Amino acid sequence: MSDQCTSIVLTGDDPPLQRTVVEKPKLQPGETLVEILCCTICGSDLHTYEGTRSTPCPTILGHEMIGRVVDLNSEVPIRDYLDRPVLIGDRITWSVAVSCKECENCRRGLTQKCTRLFKYGHQRLTDQNYLSGGLASHCHLVKGTTIFKVPESLPDQVASPANCATATVMAAFRLAGEIENKSVLILGAGMLGVTAAAVAHSHGAAAVIVTDIEPERVKRSLEFGATHTVLAKKEQPLHAEIPHLTDGRGVDLVFDMTGVPEVMESGLESLAIGGRMILVGAVYPARPIQLSAETMVRKLLRLEGIHNYTDLDLANALNFLERYQNQYPFQRLSEHSFSLDEVPAAFAESANHRSYRVAILPHQFD
Amino acid sequence: MSDQCTSIVLTGDDPPLQRTVVEKPKLQPGETLVEILCCTICGSDLHTYEGTRSTPCPTILGHEMIGRVVDLNSEVPIRDYLDRPVLIGDRITWSVAVSCKECENCRRGLTQKCTRLFKYGHQRLTDQNYLSGGLASHCHLVKGTTIFKVPESLPDQVASPANCATATVMAAFRLAGEIENKSVLILGAGMLGVTAAAVAHSHGAAAVIVTDIEPERVKRSLEFGATHTVLAKKEQPLHAEIPHLTDGRGVDLVFDMTGVPEVMESGLESLAIGGRMILVGAVYPARPIQLSAETMVRKLLRLEGIHNYTDLDLANALNFLERYQNQYPFQRLSEHSFSLDEVPAAFAESANHRSYRVAILPHQFD
Repeated sequence: MSDQCTSIVLTGDDPPLQRTVVEKPKLQPGETLVEILCCTICGSDLHTYEGTRSTPCPTILGHEMIGRVVDLNSEVPIRDYLDRPVLIGDRITWSVAVSCKECENCRRGLTQKCTRLFKYGHQRLTDQNYLSGGLASHCHLVKGTTIFKVPESLPDQVASPANCATATVMAAFRLAGEIENKSVLILGAGMLGVTAAAVAHSHGAAAVIVTDIEPERVKRSLEFGATHTVLAKKEQPLHAEIPHLTDGRGVDLVFDMTGVPEVMESGLESLAIGGRMILVGAVYPARPIQLSAETMVRKLLRLEGIHNYTDLDLANALNFLERYQNQYPFQRLSEHSFSLDEVPAAFAESANHRSYRVAILPHQFD
Repeated sequence: MSDQCTSIVLTGDDPPLQRTVVEKPKLQPGETLVEILCCTICGSDLHTYEGTRSTPCPTILGHEMIGRVVDLNSEVPIRDYLDRPVLIGDRITWSVAVSCKECENCRRGLTQKCTRLFKYGHQRLTDQNYLSGGLASHCHLVKGTTIFKVPESLPDQVASPANCATATVMAAFRLAGEIENKSVLILGAGMLGVTAAAVAHSHGAAAVIVTDIEPERVKRSLEFGATHTVLAKKEQPLHAEIPHLTDGRGVDLVFDMTGVPEVMESGLESLAIGGRMILVGAVYPARPIQLSAETMVRKLLRLEGIHNYTDLDLANALNFLERYQNQYPFQRLSEHSFSLDEVPAAFAESANHRSYRVAILPHQFD
């Protein structure tokens, strides 16, 4: 490899993005350098780029990615999640969040809430690590990063969302419990929504009801296991549609991927006795949601939030994609790819609701 | 026994209560007749008596009770929860709700939501069963009732709340999961609240914080394992008090026994990352509660309602009371007792906030 790396830095200033050429970093013990094969743009990257979500700058956006190991400092041994040595040439992904495993939150299993968290694609650049995001030729992995070898059969663009979108969906299903023979309602049919539909369907759900305001997205969900779809309309509450799809019982599980208060409230109204609703999409400021505590009690409902994921969820995400990539057309969710020099165009395409994931392929256009 | 039974019927008319003398019922196969030893008045009995909760009339209120078997029809064998034969002379309690074990809700483990539910103290009286409540000399147990023998060491007044208050608290702790080394906040220090304090303390909670608006109740909770108390004041939100009691972390678990929207909202604000709040008290109409879905997501919070209980919860309730009755002064929670003829006075005493449980002893005053 050349001794130079390229990154697209979000400056927090004008111009917002700056192409930067930097020296290949000197690795500390336990650190790895990967050449980025693919970085897919997540909704949160888009929100930050558009200014509706704040982040410390300068930074390099992009956290959904996979890469190939090109250098490592094994003075501290570097092993993957399954305790195998990580070697130069390995095609890998890794947990977006690096946790200390020692603080109070880590010891309680909430590693994604580590008080000393390092998060790829979200860090202010430093002299020690100026390649911490995916919109670059290389990524510099810090000591303690949980690394996963990517199954050979998984194409780059299918594997890339594993360490954010797919792993988050796996975390939500971990909270939901048993899926078999349950009726499942999925609010929002973007990347998370269609992934959730596929997980529910593959786990034997009795019904997979998917709703969105975009007709194309609703239609696409049918390829990902949706058994019923509801085109959401502002003037017609969703929960009015649910009884006749569930013999009047309501649904056992709701996954919210929208974060829209009216939609979440409608989801709660749709629950059957003993039902559970998992909140995933509410990661931006919005008005409070209103709910009847009496209904929560009398119907024995559970409402739970999930943010990010644990290492096990990412392991499950890779296994799921490997096993089901031919049953559900994940490959077709990432149809547009761009070079590093085309990042503004990639963000513009990413803002189009017909787009699920836009890929940056830093080396394909070299 | 005499061939006559006495009941205090809630007429739904004027006069509201009517002393009625009826013939001893003829038992169908699988049915049992018990002489009621003690019936304690639950908050929901009081709400119904005061007209703030509706029930089909005529009925006999009272569902927290224990009794002694005086007759049974064993053409269908009658066995207790531990599969031992039920015999004349046995001192027993039983599940308030009798479920069919066959409907969709029963098959999902939600027996308390059985679609063909029979509920002691809540049934409209019929020609087949005109002794279905606790404010009577006898109670007529229908086929399928889950019966528990009451440990000999448990006094009548301590055992009586087991099949409502104590079992409901056990159900709430079943949802809460591991208690050891967790910090627990209990909202409301009535019968459910002090019982929850004792359960949390006996299970090794790191802190048991109890709050109420009544100074006497707050003080009493210290005898039931509370390690910290907060006297709630309307102008000062509760959650402002929590950080300095929990090293700034917030509490791991909140149990709401109040059903008051402001109090429940304050409880949610008090939760640490990964915290859970169990709603128990919200069994009456109130304004919706407001919550931030973004906070639920970012803090990975769980909010869950529980209503009534399952047979296992009642088994655990009896075990808990038997094991801990000398460590926590449950006997002192029921200091006032009345005869069947004094039911109006018993309800008046029950409405006093210093009163936890008022007992009706139908035979002690004969």
